[in-house]
Amino acid sequence: MNLILLQKAEVDADGRAVLSDDRARHIRKILKAEPGKQLRVGLLDGPFGTGTVESMDGTLVVVKCEFDPELPPIPRIDLLLAMPRPKVMKRLWAQLAALGTGRIVLLRAEKVERYYFDSHVIEPGFYNKMLVEGLQQARCTHLPEVLVRPLFKPFVEDELEALFPDHLKLLADPAGTKRLSEIQDLGAGKRVLLAIGPEGGWTPYELEMLQARGFRLFGMGNRILRTDTATVGLISMIAEQVG
Amino acid sequence: MNLILLQKAEVDADGRAVLSDDRARHIRKILKAEPGKQLRVGLLDGPFGTGTVESMDGTLVVVKCEFDPELPPIPRIDLLLAMPRPKVMKRLWAQLAALGTGRIVLLRAEKVERYYFDSHVIEPGFYNKMLVEGLQQARCTHLPEVLVRPLFKPFVEDELEALFPDHLKLLADPAGTKRLSEIQDLGAGKRVLLAIGPEGGWTPYELEMLQARGFRLFGMGNRILRTDTATVGLISMIAEQVG
Repeated sequence: MNLILLQKAEVDADGRAVLSDDRARHIRKILKAEPGKQLRVGLLDGPFGTGTVESMDGTLVVVKCEFDPELPPIPRIDLLLAMPRPKVMKRLWAQLAALGTGRIVLLRAEKVERYYFDSHVIEPGFYNKMLVEGLQQARCTHLPEVLVRPLFKPFVEDELEALFPDHLKLLADPAGTKRLSEIQDLGAGKRVLLAIGPEGGWTPYELEMLQARGFRLFGMGNRILRTDTATVGLISMIAEQVG
Repeated sequence: MNLILLQKAEVDADGRAVLSDDRARHIRKILKAEPGKQLRVGLLDGPFGTGTVESMDGTLVVVKCEFDPELPPIPRIDLLLAMPRPKVMKRLWAQLAALGTGRIVLLRAEKVERYYFDSHVIEPGFYNKMLVEGLQQARCTHLPEVLVRPLFKPFVEDELEALFPDHLKLLADPAGTKRLSEIQDLGAGKRVLLAIGPEGGWTPYELEMLQARGFRLFGMGNRILRTDTATVGLISMIAEQVG
């Protein structure tokens, strides 16, 4: 935990928060804080700031916060991800928050098993906890917005353009012969929407649908990577190029 | 499993291998192969090839292989990794093999707990299985060579130069202000040795020791990433640039 992250509702009008969970334990046991100690804090979907430990007892820690006037920028990369196996998705949440993702759409595709969408790993109560864990690790405050879309065609036809109107749209697939570094305008300041297919790949129909909506195809070489490895690698590569 | 990987000792002089483990199950259950069916095969640390199913019964599958005359190139990236928590290292093995790593050195550093080196995850019997799993996923044959070095100073002073004489040496650390894309000669054809520190970072002494031996420092921005996330991201970024 490299940042104590607070929800807006936890902070009163004077900037005071009373903590009793793993954050309180972290402040006592790992940071070995005493009253007066200053901590790096952040407001979920808000600014960073400085917290001063006011008082503590066996379970509670009271922190008085002062937040920066400006908000940190929202991550420049959004993700359109063909829903991977729940076990793989479980491993991805915290990493997606830590790497910095603005919005995450989990989409059905032909080669995605329908039952993946029955998993508890895509329930907000489950993934929000993992996302917050990733933010506290990476020292970020932006909670990715998550959309779950179990139907490919209606999403692509009716929602995609409205959700991502000005994005540079990238489509990672073994069918791509261009490398990422050959994609023009990647460093031109636009937000990026990265689409990553299932481990079996997008179907020709899906590739066509996405390319017809402006997605540019690229490949990562001959290796067939697990979705979590590919996703972490691709977001890192794109973040390096969009800055 | 996107490749049936065979050890040299499993293949007889006529190119015949008798399989009975998870590879046999994969051929029967997932590929639903019948005698005559052709499969993509590979020899561990050797060439790719084509296997023809000769016969099969309830447990055994006999495959007759013909291997390509030329060897695939060895991955161009080697890794010097401060040993992460065993739980994190366990998650990394298959991903390192899948992404393509030539040689992996697991090193002690000041901020690495000594007991990490007592873990079963760094025993060859454990990690070779995970590495082979990664190779079979990614369709590669090069088994990374693994060296475990529980003492920082003797390794850096006595072994480093002999093991990596002509490598472009890169040092990822939050102290780095340069970005990876600003490092010169990255695309110049040299093999790369990437050093990644512990989650608490290298100490100033360690940074100095490594920089004195030609390592060039760079950073990944302000985020503090878990070792597995950082490692997968960095190898992907470098692989994209060294080709």
